Amino acid sequence: MKLATFLLDGQQRVGLVSDEGVFALPPVAGRDVGALIGAGLGPQQWHSLLAEASPVPDKGSLTWLPPVVNPRKILCVGLNYADHTKESPYEQPDYPTLFLRVPTSMVGHDGAIVRPLASDTLDYEGELAVVIGKGGKHIAKEDALSHVFGYSVFNDGSVREYQFKSPQWTVGKNFDATGGFGPYVVTADELPPGAAGLRLETRLNGQVVQSASTSDMLYDVASLIAIISEAITLEPGDVIVAGTPSGIGWAREPKLLMRHGDVCEVSIERIGTLSNPIADEQAQ
Amino acid sequence: MKLATFLLDGQQRVGLVSDEGVFALPPVAGRDVGALIGAGLGPQQWHSLLAEASPVPDKGSLTWLPPVVNPRKILCVGLNYADHTKESPYEQPDYPTLFLRVPTSMVGHDGAIVRPLASDTLDYEGELAVVIGKGGKHIAKEDALSHVFGYSVFNDGSVREYQFKSPQWTVGKNFDATGGFGPYVVTADELPPGAAGLRLETRLNGQVVQSASTSDMLYDVASLIAIISEAITLEPGDVIVAGTPSGIGWAREPKLLMRHGDVCEVSIERIGTLSNPIADEQAQ
Repeated sequence: MKLATFLLDGQQRVGLVSDEGVFALPPVAGRDVGALIGAGLGPQQWHSLLAEASPVPDKGSLTWLPPVVNPRKILCVGLNYADHTKESPYEQPDYPTLFLRVPTSMVGHDGAIVRPLASDTLDYEGELAVVIGKGGKHIAKEDALSHVFGYSVFNDGSVREYQFKSPQWTVGKNFDATGGFGPYVVTADELPPGAAGLRLETRLNGQVVQSASTSDMLYDVASLIAIISEAITLEPGDVIVAGTPSGIGWAREPKLLMRHGDVCEVSIERIGTLSNPIADEQAQ
Repeated sequence: MKLATFLLDGQQRVGLVSDEGVFALPPVAGRDVGALIGAGLGPQQWHSLLAEASPVPDKGSLTWLPPVVNPRKILCVGLNYADHTKESPYEQPDYPTLFLRVPTSMVGHDGAIVRPLASDTLDYEGELAVVIGKGGKHIAKEDALSHVFGYSVFNDGSVREYQFKSPQWTVGKNFDATGGFGPYVVTADELPPGAAGLRLETRLNGQVVQSASTSDMLYDVASLIAIISEAITLEPGDVIVAGTPSGIGWAREPKLLMRHGDVCEVSIERIGTLSNPIADEQAQ
């Protein structure tokens, strides 16, 4: 199933997305897909819950939110495709290059990715997002995929000038509303193990700028979960953003940067398409 | 006032710490100092609330938690004392070197800082912690200190081997239970503006290993808030961990690392002392 979080008539709702449309669960304060994951529902409980959903007559009335609105952790992987490392100023390390994003840096499907007042160096990075279902520490690689709730799409929007102002990428990766996430989470049972072998494509104003297979990742989903959980306890609703392939705008000659009015889409086969317009931050 | 979060008889409580002892507020599920900050209480409401506190007869019965248990953001500053940058492999950047910690990496006062199974390269870093009271974006430096709720003490415990396995320090800064935080938050009205001019001292088994003035920080508290909020919306309860001075164990010859049975203390004048024993992670 495909689960989303959105605003409908100003209320935060969880919904089911299907070929027949969008079905909204009754409003419960603060409920998002992350809260439902955290509740640890069994199949029967999911079934009962989803039976309460009612159709949303007009999809245009939805404001999509990140499916998990406030993850405790948003663990992003840099340099996870060899061809992207080659276009970067880095050597390939023999350990995943992890950095973190904060919830304020995210925006849902169809929401504007904001080019900040501070810099015009806003770039795209299409990525697979992994949403943790069952937490744990020291998770063995062979058990790791049983800890995944589902998969989604992420645009790890990066303000390059700030990413490289110091040795740590943090600020360039955490400007408000630069990270697209959604539209929904597809449960793992509907996809190949580890979401492997899926075509990932990023388009800027309709032009393909990144295209790769999720199988090109140097650290696959199971490896990432095993390696991260050696150090860090994973919790339900945590998100792992699994890295971007080559084709970023910053590595092009001339550089390709996102501007007000652009539309950036990231599609992953069998998951869906995340689309975000780009809009300049308004002076306060 | 000094506000703490702790477990008492298994229940999470907020308490007031004074020369007369510790006074606990009535238990409210999920309430920590961060939740009270988020509630945006006025002086009269704080007064009424604290009038409900009752003395804790035996301080030894408390389990101290991080005052803010689950901050949305834990923004840490690297290379914020010139003498520490000199002992590091880095040049001084002309922008703050920010990295993030996650809540699972923290531990309260008197709790064990855990030396992980993965590595014996566990080091201390004594630091000033700033707890945001009023959120905001594009906060002017001259207004910045009005956004501070209070100050606390942090031990930014670092697993050096993992900090340097890739270009990003994230994993080495985020092993479970490596970051001591507490014992309490001292409200800003009780300290000099920006907590400037206070002596910060780290002791390992009683021996002084770091000693500096908070005025030696290259980016002071007001500057950090102004610079960070140019990019990232600050929210009530967010924590800024303001950087460590020289004297870290990893830069010594021979290296000084923390081991099971050690006790590491960080004191900041007029704020207090955070003390943590070191304990090896137990195999599962």
